[in-house]
Amino acid sequence: MTIRGEMLIGATALRGAETEFHAIDPATGAALEPGFGGGGAAEVERACALAWEAFDLYRETGLEARAVFLETIAANILAIGDELIVRAMAESGLPRPRLEGERGRTVGQLRLFARTVREGSWLEARIDPAQPTRAPLPRADLRQRHIALGPVAVFGASNFPLAFSVAGGDTASALAAGCPVVVKAHSAHPGTSELIGRAVQAAVASCGLPEGVFSLLFGSGSRIGAALVADPRVKAVGFTGSRRGGVSLTQVAAARAEPIPVYAEMSSINPVILLSAALAARAEALGAGFVGSLTMGAGQFCTNPGLVLALDGPDLERFLTAAAETLGGAAPSTMLTPGIHAAYVEGVARIAANPAVEVLARGQQTVGPHQCRPGLFTSSAEAFLSDPALHEEIFGAASLVIRCPDVAALRAVLERLEGQLTATLHMDAADADAVRALLPVLERKAGRILANGWPTGVEVCDAMVHGGPFPATSDSRTTSVGTLAIRRFLRPVCYQDIPDSLLPEALRDGNPLGLWRRVDGVLAAAGGVGG
Amino acid sequence: MTIRGEMLIGATALRGAETEFHAIDPATGAALEPGFGGGGAAEVERACALAWEAFDLYRETGLEARAVFLETIAANILAIGDELIVRAMAESGLPRPRLEGERGRTVGQLRLFARTVREGSWLEARIDPAQPTRAPLPRADLRQRHIALGPVAVFGASNFPLAFSVAGGDTASALAAGCPVVVKAHSAHPGTSELIGRAVQAAVASCGLPEGVFSLLFGSGSRIGAALVADPRVKAVGFTGSRRGGVSLTQVAAARAEPIPVYAEMSSINPVILLSAALAARAEALGAGFVGSLTMGAGQFCTNPGLVLALDGPDLERFLTAAAETLGGAAPSTMLTPGIHAAYVEGVARIAANPAVEVLARGQQTVGPHQCRPGLFTSSAEAFLSDPALHEEIFGAASLVIRCPDVAALRAVLERLEGQLTATLHMDAADADAVRALLPVLERKAGRILANGWPTGVEVCDAMVHGGPFPATSDSRTTSVGTLAIRRFLRPVCYQDIPDSLLPEALRDGNPLGLWRRVDGVLAAAGGVGG
Repeated sequence: MTIRGEMLIGATALRGAETEFHAIDPATGAALEPGFGGGGAAEVERACALAWEAFDLYRETGLEARAVFLETIAANILAIGDELIVRAMAESGLPRPRLEGERGRTVGQLRLFARTVREGSWLEARIDPAQPTRAPLPRADLRQRHIALGPVAVFGASNFPLAFSVAGGDTASALAAGCPVVVKAHSAHPGTSELIGRAVQAAVASCGLPEGVFSLLFGSGSRIGAALVADPRVKAVGFTGSRRGGVSLTQVAAARAEPIPVYAEMSSINPVILLSAALAARAEALGAGFVGSLTMGAGQFCTNPGLVLALDGPDLERFLTAAAETLGGAAPSTMLTPGIHAAYVEGVARIAANPAVEVLARGQQTVGPHQCRPGLFTSSAEAFLSDPALHEEIFGAASLVIRCPDVAALRAVLERLEGQLTATLHMDAADADAVRALLPVLERKAGRILANGWPTGVEVCDAMVHGGPFPATSDSRTTSVGTLAIRRFLRPVCYQDIPDSLLPEALRDGNPLGLWRRVDGVLAAAGGVGG
Repeated sequence: MTIRGEMLIGATALRGAETEFHAIDPATGAALEPGFGGGGAAEVERACALAWEAFDLYRETGLEARAVFLETIAANILAIGDELIVRAMAESGLPRPRLEGERGRTVGQLRLFARTVREGSWLEARIDPAQPTRAPLPRADLRQRHIALGPVAVFGASNFPLAFSVAGGDTASALAAGCPVVVKAHSAHPGTSELIGRAVQAAVASCGLPEGVFSLLFGSGSRIGAALVADPRVKAVGFTGSRRGGVSLTQVAAARAEPIPVYAEMSSINPVILLSAALAARAEALGAGFVGSLTMGAGQFCTNPGLVLALDGPDLERFLTAAAETLGGAAPSTMLTPGIHAAYVEGVARIAANPAVEVLARGQQTVGPHQCRPGLFTSSAEAFLSDPALHEEIFGAASLVIRCPDVAALRAVLERLEGQLTATLHMDAADADAVRALLPVLERKAGRILANGWPTGVEVCDAMVHGGPFPATSDSRTTSVGTLAIRRFLRPVCYQDIPDSLLPEALRDGNPLGLWRRVDGVLAAAGGVGG
């Protein structure tokens, strides 16, 4: 495959006429060829028109056909071969093993959604049969299924150029739900985006689907992105990125004549809580493990542990000594973009200059452009409670350890936190009472609560929640990773007394799709009650 | 029980110090005793503080205890006896049989949510067991359940003083989900609200729940209502009422530091589509049936059929003749409030004055204050497509019949409609092709699609959807009637490697609650896989 610098609009490829831009290799600062032409209003219009045209047909594709489509995208991504990895390395500064792993995750995610589509419980079929003789009034025949919301605009993230980008979780779950997708590519990895986009485009064609099921646009977020979210044919938005970016899209969506849901995954500092017995038992191991999680991928994860809350005392000193030592030996690593690097440097300088903060350790000196030099800082619960600046996310390998005099102070700090993607407890059996006191707070604050692990690393499975209260996301009722993510793009419709032959298959007598259905209040598999 | 004009804040009752107001009997225009004191910022603060205090405890009440609480509310409502019906009649102008029926529905709804709580599938327990030997990386033990969002603000509707008010569907589903509720009572039926509020308050006490689980406030929407929605401790809003009111609360919620979901059920004209074969077979019966639905309860239903789309021709004339005759004999009936009556009169005058509209029939002259004199109007598809004023809801018994030259024109009119709660088809077997052409549009436009019935009458059951795209509601992903309504007040939380004894019961090994759970991808009942 060759990267041509072109947008993909339905079945066509074309070069945008707006300002040309290049991907930058963050390891060298050099511009990568080819240049990409940014799109404008005409391309947004065309992509949305095609998506709208495709919608009614695509949302009613059979479960098997839709699953095969997702699997074809996965196969096409693998078929790109090493060109994809090489280009993604150049555009992101991420190392080969990481990107190979991310490709596996992306492909696995598409296949998991294919399995989810086939299984069909996401349709949530419910049937309340007619009760013609009920007094005082008969009951009509009522049947409910979920249908796709409409075309979805997806904004890829810089930090996962494969798994949270063009064919990442938002796209996979929206396509699984039956929604056409228009992607606004992240300008940091346009070549990777084009390669993946062509893989999706080819799958649309070979599966015989309407071309508007997928489009890929380049251009500025404030121009292309805002126009996309404002388009009346777009019915939902998936976004992973900064708080500023997510909030701004949410505002565009709220200002529409018809407001639409925005699923923005934004900002989280992912508190890690070290309890007494765990600290006493393994302070050194925890210190080393923590720094491993903190510095992985230059700390450029939504779930990076940016805050540690620990009970003060000699065991915490052991932890800090071990963490400082490990961090002090940590090699610098290239960050994703010059902009992310600049924001990191600025954030670290700001926290280091805070009079209530002590710089505990820095990683090794940088040796190239745009490198992250990890930083570890400490402060007190009192300072943290009184200074909101200490609550802000620094995207990259930087973390703040808060010394808490007791569990009550620790709980007070947690209560003051904004919403989080994750909260992590390090605990032993003797910490159970402290955990019981903290769990209600953590449940209110975070989408995922972990014990004795590290938050970086998000399993793609049924039980995962990658979400949480604002500003972790703009909508705490959902997740952007795992099979429940499909629900973001669905709405229920009820059919009353519609003749069987006109009903969608999911709701017909005899259960032709073999679905789990709730019939007269009782959940049953195909062949069961009402089967 | 005696109505005292008092607000209920947790376990206390107190009289508001702001402007006093009285309920008005719309049948006479007379003020009803006692006067009610409106609340202010202090009462909002106190109710929210108590709700927040109650939240962690209430959301973890056992399923059985929570179900018994809902059933106790139902029993307490019945125990009020005839005083409730008499007061609601005086405050709403609605007749006794209607209010007795509505009481039955309200109580039935509480009991249905009690059954739903006990059954427990709304927790959506999912378990992905650990895979310690998986390569390249082991999988952690991941478990997901849904938990309550937080305190919910509920705004009752004027047109269902029992079923969509203080202990109506929003309150019942929020309490079922584990959310404390603060109700802003509708000023049209404060006495009814106080009676029901005391029934809930007594249930909170007798069930030993924290007092903050329920509060009831009086006062102006722009003062009390906006303050309630802006309070940081309120995490979701349920509202049934006007488009203006709903949109305004949505804007308050979107402007918060932490935006929250607003479930506003607002505006719908509920198109009824008459297809050729059905019209030919039973035009007269359809005409009479339509007017019955249109004039029931003075047309004051969210699902009132305010728009009829029919294929033009002699059969439509038969329908119109029958409808005009039935409507001409329709007696006037008292509307809910002087304000609703004034808006109705103004809306009917406006549509009658539209040069593209013909007045087909009016009901009998009014004989008392605030009475609805039904109106039936006709216009053309062309006029409807070019004049957005014809799309506006007139709350009350008024409907507009649009003559369509063919199914394509009918489809074009449907495509132009805003979102709807319902869409109704009258069809025979020979209309199947037309229905197939229209269904995709109806699915996109409405929450419920009916064949050969009338939209007024909303069954409370599992399969019901009382929802739909904007402006029918502010959030098409949900329903405000039926058991799925509980989902509005829930969010998922994932537990990773949390020791079994610290997990919520719903997720523990051995399935102590006997729930349906999805274990390793497979849905299974208690005793099944992973049971």
